[in-house]
Amino acid sequence: MRPYELTLAAAAAAIRAGELSPVELTDSVLARAEAVEGRLHAFVTLRADEARASAARAAHEIAAGRARGPLHGVPMGLKDLIDVKGQPTTASSSVRADHVADADSAVAARLADAGAVLLGKTHTHEFAYGLTTPQTRNAWDAGRVAGGSSGGSAVAVAAGEATFALGTDTGGSIRVPAALNGVVGLKPTYGLVPRDGVTSLSWSLDHVGPVTRTVEDAALVLATLTGHDPRDPADATVPRQGRRPYPEGDLTGLRVGVPRNYYFDRVAPDVESAVRDAIDRLRDLGAELVDVEIPMTRYVQAVQWGLMVPEATSYHERTLRAAPELYAPDVRVLLEAGELLLAGDYLRAQRARTLMRRAWTRMLDAVDVIAAPTVPLTAAPAGQQSVQWADGSVESVSDSYVRLSAPANITGVPALTVPVGQDRAGLPVGMQLIGRPLGERTVLRVGSAYEATRADAGRLAPETGTPAAAESMPPAPPAARHLPGRRS
Amino acid sequence: MRPYELTLAAAAAAIRAGELSPVELTDSVLARAEAVEGRLHAFVTLRADEARASAARAAHEIAAGRARGPLHGVPMGLKDLIDVKGQPTTASSSVRADHVADADSAVAARLADAGAVLLGKTHTHEFAYGLTTPQTRNAWDAGRVAGGSSGGSAVAVAAGEATFALGTDTGGSIRVPAALNGVVGLKPTYGLVPRDGVTSLSWSLDHVGPVTRTVEDAALVLATLTGHDPRDPADATVPRQGRRPYPEGDLTGLRVGVPRNYYFDRVAPDVESAVRDAIDRLRDLGAELVDVEIPMTRYVQAVQWGLMVPEATSYHERTLRAAPELYAPDVRVLLEAGELLLAGDYLRAQRARTLMRRAWTRMLDAVDVIAAPTVPLTAAPAGQQSVQWADGSVESVSDSYVRLSAPANITGVPALTVPVGQDRAGLPVGMQLIGRPLGERTVLRVGSAYEATRADAGRLAPETGTPAAAESMPPAPPAARHLPGRRS
Repeated sequence: MRPYELTLAAAAAAIRAGELSPVELTDSVLARAEAVEGRLHAFVTLRADEARASAARAAHEIAAGRARGPLHGVPMGLKDLIDVKGQPTTASSSVRADHVADADSAVAARLADAGAVLLGKTHTHEFAYGLTTPQTRNAWDAGRVAGGSSGGSAVAVAAGEATFALGTDTGGSIRVPAALNGVVGLKPTYGLVPRDGVTSLSWSLDHVGPVTRTVEDAALVLATLTGHDPRDPADATVPRQGRRPYPEGDLTGLRVGVPRNYYFDRVAPDVESAVRDAIDRLRDLGAELVDVEIPMTRYVQAVQWGLMVPEATSYHERTLRAAPELYAPDVRVLLEAGELLLAGDYLRAQRARTLMRRAWTRMLDAVDVIAAPTVPLTAAPAGQQSVQWADGSVESVSDSYVRLSAPANITGVPALTVPVGQDRAGLPVGMQLIGRPLGERTVLRVGSAYEATRADAGRLAPETGTPAAAESMPPAPPAARHLPGRRS
Repeated sequence: MRPYELTLAAAAAAIRAGELSPVELTDSVLARAEAVEGRLHAFVTLRADEARASAARAAHEIAAGRARGPLHGVPMGLKDLIDVKGQPTTASSSVRADHVADADSAVAARLADAGAVLLGKTHTHEFAYGLTTPQTRNAWDAGRVAGGSSGGSAVAVAAGEATFALGTDTGGSIRVPAALNGVVGLKPTYGLVPRDGVTSLSWSLDHVGPVTRTVEDAALVLATLTGHDPRDPADATVPRQGRRPYPEGDLTGLRVGVPRNYYFDRVAPDVESAVRDAIDRLRDLGAELVDVEIPMTRYVQAVQWGLMVPEATSYHERTLRAAPELYAPDVRVLLEAGELLLAGDYLRAQRARTLMRRAWTRMLDAVDVIAAPTVPLTAAPAGQQSVQWADGSVESVSDSYVRLSAPANITGVPALTVPVGQDRAGLPVGMQLIGRPLGERTVLRVGSAYEATRADAGRLAPETGTPAAAESMPPAPPAARHLPGRRS
């Protein structure tokens, strides 16, 4: 196995054992990025020289007996909303052409303290305001969308261009691209990971979290990211979590909620069957499956948009007035729409969120986690705007990608996506494990137990050639007939 | 001393010693209310028979050795925003003509558990949306305003119509009437006292707290009110406080911040001198006085109104559309104004509040409490709309009453008002003691130490005759020339 193919845990073990040097690992990952970036476009900037220098410093420290832990000397990417001192934070936007961060974000500082090697910044849908990341191609099929907004991070990890990465998640932006690229993504509990120095999309819904190739790796990165940060007003102030916060294997005694509404409605048959098979594995591992009724589902979309649109507009207020032409048209129209919303609209959304949080808390009293699809369909061909469901309804691809993710943003509960196989077109499917507030340990434990049953856990996306592959696209899943051109 | 004149602590001690029965105390307080209600109008409803029955039950329990603590058998009033099962919660509004509460509010339930005797519901400015309580007269001078919105509670306590009472405080509505009627009022830390079952004015600024005749009494009531309530989304989840949470006397080692800006600007000279004298007493008691600069003061008014107006409108949305004519004109105009505000206006206020909270936290790192006037002028004659300050500026009476109180609502920090003497017209002046989040213990300790230096602590308002007193009003304080009729 070449170094760029190693999971974070495997790379850390090899470094610890003296079998792999951080320089060798970083060189391997950089060479891989050089080989695939022309096709995938995961990175805004790659800083190979700085990464090599950082890896050399890590190698030196480790050789001198000053090993810092499992992230020490491991190369990673940061979504380009995350400030690193002295580097631009472009947010993949022309608006940020002249931006240079004057300090590290809290998470960048923590990763630096842990000795992680920064490769560069990964692409986002402009300012994280979308679910496709149009600059970036899917790691499994360059003719398909990467998903977004943390598309660059998910593709880099899936393709071996980074051993791990960070993303942000406001309505699914870690979980959606992770699911569409066959990797693991964790949206932690609201407030658990500090957001200081991270460009905001919607502050009451924003989260920072890891994108990795295994659940074990996600736990390693989370342990480095968590801890009190007085600069984040949403800081949940829990004690710093220990590393690898889950025991192995058996799920006896654990109650897994299986939604009887919402999460399996308007879901492609291949996605449903892959997720239901995975849920059966959880039962085989000892978990008790419990039917749950998801509360207040008809409010999800209104609450998500009712909170996000005005908060995003508020964040961009000055720039939007000064230079609206610098935004991409799809983002600009959303920001301008936000200027028209009344305070009463926003407050209705806030009040509905309060009720939803209470209703979810009651539901989660009865189960330890909920298992459900992450997204209702796999990666759509680039340019496809809409999907028609078996019930005849038509939905924009973006709306479908956000639909099953948003509840965890609104309620703030942790949600993990884990790969559970492929559809008949060979595209990856994700299962979402949703936990109680601050229930990361349980969510990771369940994900890890499931992952241990899979022979393909931690594997890279298969090689799929050049963008010309888009011309010979596999057929769409039968339930999702594609309507080109329509945009909701 | 007649029973209705006793402080809560004194009444509790007499009951405990078997020298006073709850029935005797309640009869005395009810007789007092009968004597002065015709002049003061503190109560919306007085339920004398139920109160006597409740007092008799308390007497029976105590005689049977089942004493519950210092509130057992003590008569009190609840601001009529606070639900009591089976009783109307009128909010002093025609809108609530047909309302009956179907459950106790959390605070009413706690007081009932503690054995307190409910006398009835006290008047509020309609839905707490104002600072005068026009139905109610000042306990010291019936020609002057009671202050609001918890005017009924403050007047009832000041006049001996209740041994203690609860109010609510969104921009000063406990502290303003307490100061204007010469009693003690505490706005606790945001989230410390549960608000479930209390009619909301502005949920991100609303607080419930005690109105009493001494600081010691406020501590006794607070100890009963605090504790975790999962039904309040703002619940601060701190352990239940012990009773009487402060030691006596000496303030050596304590740092008292004295604002060099804002809190002494546009303040009547008599108010300033009474408060500065009280601050000198704190120094005499051992406290170190420290100059502090109050941060972001020019945002206070915009943030207070920018949060309150849209939240209040959101709360009243349906009724306002269905029956706008049921609201008093002053309240209706504010509610209707709230319908025009944009989400961006509200979010600007929210963001400014976040910055203010941080700035206040930094300021409060340097001191234990801040001492300042509660209101910049004493009780205004009923009907007076504006005041002209020494610098020539004109301010509405309501704006002046809210000006020094609002920062503690915006930042959520605890604030206590303590009587510190009278102006030359004989009207009471209040000093505000503002603490760190969850710093109630310190705030109460300082207030109690100050109070112990005063011979008149805990006394009722002097008798001042009938409403005809309005005709022979004492002259206004010299700095506050009254401009009749103008309304901002």
